[in-house]
Amino acid sequence: MQMQSYVAGEWQDNGKVIGQAHCALDGSVMAELIGHDLNGGEILDYARNHGGPALRALTYLQRADLLKQIAAVLSENKERYAELSAKNNGATAMDTFLDVEGGIGTMKYYASLGKRLGERRWMTEGELEQLTKDENFRAVHVLTPIRGVAVHINAFNFPAWGMLGKLSVSLLSGVPTVVKPAAATLPVAWAMAQDIVAAGILPKGAFSFLAGGGRDLTNYLTSEDALAFTGSADTAGMLAAHPRIISQSVRFNAEADSINSSVMGPDLSPESDGFKSFIHEVSKEMTIKSGQKCTAVRRIFVPAAHLEAAQAALIAKLSKNVLGNPADEGVTYGPLVSASQKQAAVDGVAALSSETEVVFEGAMGGDADGFYFTQKLLLCREPLKAKTVHETEVFGPVATLMPYESEEQLFELVRRGGGSLVSSVFTNDDSFMVEALQQLGSTHGRLLFVDDSISRGHSGHGNVMPMCIHGGPGRAGGGQELGGLRGLNFYHARTAVQTNLTRATALQQG
Amino acid sequence: MQMQSYVAGEWQDNGKVIGQAHCALDGSVMAELIGHDLNGGEILDYARNHGGPALRALTYLQRADLLKQIAAVLSENKERYAELSAKNNGATAMDTFLDVEGGIGTMKYYASLGKRLGERRWMTEGELEQLTKDENFRAVHVLTPIRGVAVHINAFNFPAWGMLGKLSVSLLSGVPTVVKPAAATLPVAWAMAQDIVAAGILPKGAFSFLAGGGRDLTNYLTSEDALAFTGSADTAGMLAAHPRIISQSVRFNAEADSINSSVMGPDLSPESDGFKSFIHEVSKEMTIKSGQKCTAVRRIFVPAAHLEAAQAALIAKLSKNVLGNPADEGVTYGPLVSASQKQAAVDGVAALSSETEVVFEGAMGGDADGFYFTQKLLLCREPLKAKTVHETEVFGPVATLMPYESEEQLFELVRRGGGSLVSSVFTNDDSFMVEALQQLGSTHGRLLFVDDSISRGHSGHGNVMPMCIHGGPGRAGGGQELGGLRGLNFYHARTAVQTNLTRATALQQG
Repeated sequence: MQMQSYVAGEWQDNGKVIGQAHCALDGSVMAELIGHDLNGGEILDYARNHGGPALRALTYLQRADLLKQIAAVLSENKERYAELSAKNNGATAMDTFLDVEGGIGTMKYYASLGKRLGERRWMTEGELEQLTKDENFRAVHVLTPIRGVAVHINAFNFPAWGMLGKLSVSLLSGVPTVVKPAAATLPVAWAMAQDIVAAGILPKGAFSFLAGGGRDLTNYLTSEDALAFTGSADTAGMLAAHPRIISQSVRFNAEADSINSSVMGPDLSPESDGFKSFIHEVSKEMTIKSGQKCTAVRRIFVPAAHLEAAQAALIAKLSKNVLGNPADEGVTYGPLVSASQKQAAVDGVAALSSETEVVFEGAMGGDADGFYFTQKLLLCREPLKAKTVHETEVFGPVATLMPYESEEQLFELVRRGGGSLVSSVFTNDDSFMVEALQQLGSTHGRLLFVDDSISRGHSGHGNVMPMCIHGGPGRAGGGQELGGLRGLNFYHARTAVQTNLTRATALQQG
Repeated sequence: MQMQSYVAGEWQDNGKVIGQAHCALDGSVMAELIGHDLNGGEILDYARNHGGPALRALTYLQRADLLKQIAAVLSENKERYAELSAKNNGATAMDTFLDVEGGIGTMKYYASLGKRLGERRWMTEGELEQLTKDENFRAVHVLTPIRGVAVHINAFNFPAWGMLGKLSVSLLSGVPTVVKPAAATLPVAWAMAQDIVAAGILPKGAFSFLAGGGRDLTNYLTSEDALAFTGSADTAGMLAAHPRIISQSVRFNAEADSINSSVMGPDLSPESDGFKSFIHEVSKEMTIKSGQKCTAVRRIFVPAAHLEAAQAALIAKLSKNVLGNPADEGVTYGPLVSASQKQAAVDGVAALSSETEVVFEGAMGGDADGFYFTQKLLLCREPLKAKTVHETEVFGPVATLMPYESEEQLFELVRRGGGSLVSSVFTNDDSFMVEALQQLGSTHGRLLFVDDSISRGHSGHGNVMPMCIHGGPGRAGGGQELGGLRGLNFYHARTAVQTNLTRATALQQG
């Protein structure tokens, strides 16, 4: 299989192989990335000059309809994506569902939001404000689409959801988009791009797709462009400090490392229903997508008095998991996506070894040439003295169990993550929940508080729901995406429009 | 007069003179800046450990009351500030009013907003969202104060308003604040800081004030801190790229250069009332605060057919202005604030000389040792071929008149500012107004559309109203401040809280 870039309105092919994607199950090469001869400026200019005017001429309702059509096309081809995902990502059926159906579902959600925005080309925010004694003079805050390009640099772990979630928001906003997926997991994204282009739904220039390359895009960004990045903190930092990003005040959103946590509340005992929910959720989060979720639980906090019980319960649960080729019966989790990711996981566990001990390790499985890595439960007995465990994201089926002695100590420990995407707190104590929100809100993009009444009905520690913002402060990159219409703000400029009452009212009505 | 820093809960004085402030009217030294021996980390830690917990323990209502008390104390001492402003800034009574009363008024406005927020310690945003089939499981987006420090680096042109506007928002948010005003115009800010501290209104650590120094503060910022900067694009870029800002994802807001514009709409003729409003506003904006406003008109666009009429009308208006010591009768505008600002204005006009001609220059006035700089109207006959005139902010009573041939050309020319704080567009044509909004929204933080019905009632091209956002994309720094409660978002973390319906409802009710 050869995978090309779709840029400047054409599938490009200069005949040069610039990279490979592998089968995670056996390490074999499953596809080649093919180069092209355009530079970043040419790619952006085409999108800016063709895609921009065409998308801005449409209303939100019309753009929502484009999303709906794309989602329909992708739904028809789900099986092909699942096949690619099973090989390239070593995914289970559930892993693929989260990625592919999760992505299509997010696109459908934004299609429905766009439909509600209706036949308009701008949004307004808040009420009309009176600024002077003249009641006829008013201000209204108006959001208009930026006139540049959205550049999306996506992570390897969600080739479908990562692309479709970001793309839904930028296209609905009316901003042409250049997608650069991760090379290691390009196949699913590439197959989707092929189907999107072949369907001929989008105006020329609205959608561009890079199969590798594109490192020079940043050099050509302007103040009207927006760069959304998901990946490592190192790359995020390099992009944020790029002279072009700085000099042009380019909009930049980053989602980077996150040492998420799950907390067994001080009110729970090992006999409580809440404890069972907690153990169930944590063990599930450790192996879904083999732990390759930016939202996965990395740190597990339990009251010191219940450390042994929690450890035993977790080990009992994890022992039921089986590593191997998800196509084989009885297998519950698959390999990591690449040799380098496997090595990074090995290195990560080694880095934690000075502060933790391995209290459980799953059995090996799968082809020796695949990128298999067994689940590991680590224990850190003195988390207050630890540093690495709060700062190291092992991107695999690995988490560290830690005891806390008091609420104050718990909050301090959780905050040592330095800013995270999510923490889930299991508690039936309403006042503890309010205290935890006030103590942990500023370091978390999302807090899931599970009590017994929603233990079966909640959406999960790791699932990103498009109605809620996704992103986290500090180490997690400082960005925010999705969150319903909030997500569109990144691709819109907010302008205070000061004018007469009639005009202001008309603007608000669209 | 000696001006010290108030940090770590004390007025500091190590006896070392580290700078001077001058009288703009005659160039004499009017005050000395005195050093201290604390480093940035010590200053921030004190604020973080003492001011933070104290402010977060209060409700918005209680913090609003602190603002109200501060505003009252400052109101009592207005005359002292006016005296300092007249000398140090060479300000007219109107200039001082904009700065001092503008700042106190902004603080009163935020006190009233905070009163409406009431007895709560967090805000919520939007509606409750249902995420799964379980109607009892909901999400609510909650804004809690960041647990760090607000660092404000202010510009020289608004020593009072710049400090009080930013301070109102961070204190109301519950975030302790370190203010670093510009050294050249420290006296007014310092006098206010003295009165704020002496009044004993704020808890210890809530307010710190730097009389010079503080360059190392950035090295100690964390992901829970927020840095708000107003000043040059060069410094903004240096701060944005600072390794600490990048590695910690420190919240950063910049307001930098802005080549604002004012537009005579294509529907106006030199005989129209709209033309008179336009000429009145532009000429006023050129000399208020001697043109030292970040929002001042720098580029004046008129239909090519009316270029001569506009030039004549502007010159007629400007001819009535008189430069000198504002204390002298008949003087309408004063000097620039410092020798270096005067030199920068001279250099700026020189830089524009290859693209412009000086069509009007005011008469000289004032003491030869003062920092006087005469008003200048420049003309650029071929603005489409020009570059410097769209990129150079001469921070004085200087603006450039330019003709446009078509609406399309006008929008292109205005956008060449590369992102501005404000453009004012004078037009009675509603459809042109809507087109201008769609064409110019993405490059402007504010658009003032003046038609005949509000020609006497609007709030002015250059006035920053606290109900409206202040800031601009691209060259203007990419930040936004004020805008009512929107301003508080910079000092709050937004968290998607997922929990049961009862808890979510309680959070929303505060």
